[in-house]
Amino acid sequence: MRYGILKLLKEAGSDYITGVDIGTRFGISRSAVWKHIIELRNEGYDIESSPNKGYRLLPGGELLNPFEIMDGLGTKIAGTEVVYFDEIASTNTHAAKLAADGCAEGTAVVAGTQTHGRGRLGRSWESPKGKGIYLSIILRPPMAPAETPVFTLAAAVAAVRAIYDVTGLRTGIKWPNDIIYEGKKISGILLEMNSEAEMVNWLILGIGVNYSQTESDFPEEIRDRAVSILSASGEGTPWKDAPHGQGSAPGEDLHHVLRGGHDGRAGRLALIRALLRRIDDIYQDILNGKNAGILDEWRKHSVTLGREVRFTLKNTEYTGTAADIIENGSLLVDCSDGVRRELHSGEISIRGIFGYSD
Amino acid sequence: MRYGILKLLKEAGSDYITGVDIGTRFGISRSAVWKHIIELRNEGYDIESSPNKGYRLLPGGELLNPFEIMDGLGTKIAGTEVVYFDEIASTNTHAAKLAADGCAEGTAVVAGTQTHGRGRLGRSWESPKGKGIYLSIILRPPMAPAETPVFTLAAAVAAVRAIYDVTGLRTGIKWPNDIIYEGKKISGILLEMNSEAEMVNWLILGIGVNYSQTESDFPEEIRDRAVSILSASGEGTPWKDAPHGQGSAPGEDLHHVLRGGHDGRAGRLALIRALLRRIDDIYQDILNGKNAGILDEWRKHSVTLGREVRFTLKNTEYTGTAADIIENGSLLVDCSDGVRRELHSGEISIRGIFGYSD
Repeated sequence: MRYGILKLLKEAGSDYITGVDIGTRFGISRSAVWKHIIELRNEGYDIESSPNKGYRLLPGGELLNPFEIMDGLGTKIAGTEVVYFDEIASTNTHAAKLAADGCAEGTAVVAGTQTHGRGRLGRSWESPKGKGIYLSIILRPPMAPAETPVFTLAAAVAAVRAIYDVTGLRTGIKWPNDIIYEGKKISGILLEMNSEAEMVNWLILGIGVNYSQTESDFPEEIRDRAVSILSASGEGTPWKDAPHGQGSAPGEDLHHVLRGGHDGRAGRLALIRALLRRIDDIYQDILNGKNAGILDEWRKHSVTLGREVRFTLKNTEYTGTAADIIENGSLLVDCSDGVRRELHSGEISIRGIFGYSD
Repeated sequence: MRYGILKLLKEAGSDYITGVDIGTRFGISRSAVWKHIIELRNEGYDIESSPNKGYRLLPGGELLNPFEIMDGLGTKIAGTEVVYFDEIASTNTHAAKLAADGCAEGTAVVAGTQTHGRGRLGRSWESPKGKGIYLSIILRPPMAPAETPVFTLAAAVAAVRAIYDVTGLRTGIKWPNDIIYEGKKISGILLEMNSEAEMVNWLILGIGVNYSQTESDFPEEIRDRAVSILSASGEGTPWKDAPHGQGSAPGEDLHHVLRGGHDGRAGRLALIRALLRRIDDIYQDILNGKNAGILDEWRKHSVTLGREVRFTLKNTEYTGTAADIIENGSLLVDCSDGVRRELHSGEISIRGIFGYSD
């Protein structure tokens, strides 16, 4: 009920609605309306009340909560259920528990901070309170585990699209799925799967985005390798051409959206919604067998292909040129010894990224 | 301490050991020894006490507990930790929780009965109390998810070996990993995986064995498709030649071992230990890159290859002849329309198995 009232206030924009009108709409008394308004204020919404004019929601008062994330989202699967925590150990770990308990496909877990945020290959993910996006989505694709590597590439493509949608920033993909802005990491993806031998039980697509950190917010050891959305959009020039032919550059005042709300949460909210929409889109593409298009888009956004890379395989270090990716998610590298090698996993260094220049 | 005393009694075989000797060995008083003996009796061990001779463990008094399962097992990984439940929802589900909580690799979960036993492809697994083996083992192979399909085949090979070790029964494998005796299912395997895109977090290898069911113990709908170890070893003729060149036919009196203990638990214990050993062996083979040998052994035990099979693919039914398996676990079928198809997953019917004869 109180979110129904909130919805009405949001739709009214800068106009007032009287308590009588709200009460009539929901069949409740003026004093019952007042109680709901108090509850919404306690949640953190800035609602102005005027004895003569009624109520109105003040701009920039968006919260990061399931209602705001889901309201009018319009996705088929991703984000059709949302759970939010001010603080949690790890959104991916919690999502795995929900999945094991049989939650609906598309359920998203969002947190204000993670105490044990996790990254790829057993690493941790720095998750300062209110400064990042910590989002995990549960998918249940009806396929065999062997068919799922495309999700690794698709998740990166969705993140690039979503960041562009909201910020106009054109980011790149470092294989397999780090999101890079001017040689620094702006977002990371952790994809986890639970499966039988022949059948996926669930996939968890976790996305961490550095949102409002300043340089000094990052721990010293990653300071030269990490960047946030706000510092990138302050420094960089937003791209005016849509990088993917879908959607267009943001029409709203960029700074208003990105820095709006307490703690930049309006911007985080907008980006979470964009991520859910882009993941929803690309999931439909996968379900419809459009993997080739996803690979092409990955190649287009790549900051990997054609670059000099360095990697270690069975204790031997190789250098070479990243040549292509293939549908199983592998990276093909033309090594300096003349051999083309297929990398299934692990870490590569790319000249020009994360300070690698020697 | 009390398992130390139990071990001493087991080693003494049919001889008595005095309370003084036991007390001296562990540096405790005779009355403390007596307390431990009482505890062991309360657990269910048949320990005879004679005022003059001391204590001895009566034969056939083995219990199904972690001590008995692990004592002298000699495995490197599988079964180096064991947890036992008289009753649990599902050993695989519990194993997944232990794995998520960071348990040691090789931890085995054993139960007397499962209230929600699970089989392949979302099916249930009938788990009557004391009549079956319900075993799940947690492995953490240092590999990519794409390298794990061999575990599906390997688990079946290990089960065939273990059943032969203890019972002398020669069973066959229905693709991918049902264990078949004279056209009926004697054991089923459920392999589950939790992974990142590039790295396995854990594998759970679940094995259910029909051990002491009589025909009327099986639900009517599976009665013509299921058989137990005891009814098979009573009816069938144990094979005298080892089917795998490792180990030999059981030297002990088969009926004594298989039907020993209350509720046949000595036999279940022996088979659980054999399964852990065979899984341990074959896991070492996988870690050492000996997949080709595992596939060969699967082929040797197959009741699938060369047989007429029927399956459904995208709502179309096909018949054909099962031609081979390949390292990704797929079954190659030469279909009656002249096309060779590769089956990644799902269910096949094999002429002559589970009553398929039309």
